[in-house]
Amino acid sequence: MPLVDRTLLGPGPSNPYPEATAALAAPLLGHLDPEFLRILDETCARLRTVWGTGNARTLPLSGTGSIGMEAAFANFVRPGDTVVVAVNGLFGERMTDVAARYGADVVRVDHEWGQPVDVQRVVEAHPSPAIIAAVHAETSTGVRSDIAALAAAAPDSALVLADCVTSLAGIPVDIDGWGVDIAYAGTQKCLGVSPGLAPFTVSERAWERRAQRPPTWYLDLNLIGAYVDGSQGGRTYHHTAPVALIASLHAALGRILDEGLEAVYERHRAAGEHLQRGLQDLGLTLFAEEGHRLPELTTVTVPDGVDSAKIRQILLTEHNIEIGAGAGRYAASVWRIGLMGHNARVERADLVLATLGRLLRS
Amino acid sequence: MPLVDRTLLGPGPSNPYPEATAALAAPLLGHLDPEFLRILDETCARLRTVWGTGNARTLPLSGTGSIGMEAAFANFVRPGDTVVVAVNGLFGERMTDVAARYGADVVRVDHEWGQPVDVQRVVEAHPSPAIIAAVHAETSTGVRSDIAALAAAAPDSALVLADCVTSLAGIPVDIDGWGVDIAYAGTQKCLGVSPGLAPFTVSERAWERRAQRPPTWYLDLNLIGAYVDGSQGGRTYHHTAPVALIASLHAALGRILDEGLEAVYERHRAAGEHLQRGLQDLGLTLFAEEGHRLPELTTVTVPDGVDSAKIRQILLTEHNIEIGAGAGRYAASVWRIGLMGHNARVERADLVLATLGRLLRS
Repeated sequence: MPLVDRTLLGPGPSNPYPEATAALAAPLLGHLDPEFLRILDETCARLRTVWGTGNARTLPLSGTGSIGMEAAFANFVRPGDTVVVAVNGLFGERMTDVAARYGADVVRVDHEWGQPVDVQRVVEAHPSPAIIAAVHAETSTGVRSDIAALAAAAPDSALVLADCVTSLAGIPVDIDGWGVDIAYAGTQKCLGVSPGLAPFTVSERAWERRAQRPPTWYLDLNLIGAYVDGSQGGRTYHHTAPVALIASLHAALGRILDEGLEAVYERHRAAGEHLQRGLQDLGLTLFAEEGHRLPELTTVTVPDGVDSAKIRQILLTEHNIEIGAGAGRYAASVWRIGLMGHNARVERADLVLATLGRLLRS
Repeated sequence: MPLVDRTLLGPGPSNPYPEATAALAAPLLGHLDPEFLRILDETCARLRTVWGTGNARTLPLSGTGSIGMEAAFANFVRPGDTVVVAVNGLFGERMTDVAARYGADVVRVDHEWGQPVDVQRVVEAHPSPAIIAAVHAETSTGVRSDIAALAAAAPDSALVLADCVTSLAGIPVDIDGWGVDIAYAGTQKCLGVSPGLAPFTVSERAWERRAQRPPTWYLDLNLIGAYVDGSQGGRTYHHTAPVALIASLHAALGRILDEGLEAVYERHRAAGEHLQRGLQDLGLTLFAEEGHRLPELTTVTVPDGVDSAKIRQILLTEHNIEIGAGAGRYAASVWRIGLMGHNARVERADLVLATLGRLLRS
């Protein structure tokens, strides 16, 4: 069968860093091999750097980004807890579903899609929630919210939970500086690794409030920690770690830290701004509120009279370029164009601008 | 850093089939790309062949083998349901934990480790359980149990749930022929793929008894099915599928079906028998009950006076051969030697026999 080689400029997955792909195909190690455990420890250490945290409990969970959301609520919600969720897109919406399944009394604070989280409204929604949750980079709308401001304004008693699936390693994340308690990400966005892992981090004070026996076995952080954390001596087998994916994440993080986090952010910023300017030069209208646009994920309104799906199909089948449809009710009226990780380059922006521009003119 | 190249002869992961490794490193596809969805559909079809089932709901779950166990109980246990679990090793033991977290009234039927499941005792343990669960191939002990006999003897009202993590694609599994309702496996054993996926299958009658809104969002089969199953037309995004791992599973299944399932089973049988005969020729005692030994995973008693961990360490560091420690209380007194998937070859058995034999004589 012919090899299909796409340029992945949708909302994720992105094309992995070459180092990540090479590591994926390296000889496999056992999940208890000291050589692998060294790679695992280094991966956790590198994740701490990228998260901006000293949290001991920083690790990759064995599932795609969404499993991070599940683990966050499964381990930190007790039935009857009040959880305030800022909903300004699909992933905030999803948080309300997941939190409710674990017995939370969910207080949702709705926003118009395309707008950032209104910190004041969120912190005033309830006087003493157990958790306040929000999405840092809404993959559905291309909007960045101010998690630092949210954490600063949150009552001390509330744990602050942030979805960083589309932000980590693309725009600055500073878990300790901001005072975030629980956060998760995905590997297939700005981290530049295939999907299958969810980097996760928990503060000490959140850890003290965890469920001792959460309803889930696979995501029970007490059990996972006994394997991942070798600092106390032994490692207790929990489940077989996805060794190839972790080695791949390890390699991508090495590449990112070699380049330097600031340089990586600057690369994302420059590529995203170039794309957003170029789209406007084509006469298109950006969807996300100005001043709150993610450089790594651009949302743009499909012009009147243009068949959104057809353009995406031509891009994919004739040019091997994938861009994303809009999410939810914007499926047909918005495109999502990602410049993430290895694709966060001005040249990738030029590629999609040139091709999309030609299709729209024809 | 030097490349470490191990021969993985523990209880898993095993060295993947070369086709699986190549696919892992192929250019990544998006999770909604028609080309990827074709691969996903073919993967599910190939899994049906390997499972021996026509079950429409046959798919790879996005996590390691243990997530299959979690999904099985999360979607099919209602609080208060009686679940009979045959416990003859670590993974039966684990089932009691997972089932209880989802509210099951667990009736455990304990067996000595190393023994197969006693079908009569299990079916007589409760007159009308909702679920009867057992492990087909106990990874902790190297024992095969007779799931066909269990399913035949189970009352019609009970769903039969089988853990096939270490059996699928190594020894015959016949879901429809046996009358099994719910089963899961892992990719890192006989399927010859890196860890990270859990093939899963559900019968029609089990499906009708699923939870409409299970406590877990990530493993809610209603939501996952809406993405995986394209037969009704559209696909609804749930989570980003681990595309590289699925492409790798697709390739391994292609290799397995090209070779032919019977030939694959025969290869596992021949390699395992060769190893077990050879270990006995070395004067060692096999741990699993005769007549119920898995060819793909051999358990052998560590001779008196031999430092189990030291031998394993020398094998690993000086010879790049990984074998496993025993599980649970047999950690120091049993070795587990796997010949799974690509490693199910007489030559691999000879390698470990020669090396282990020399170390034991020295």
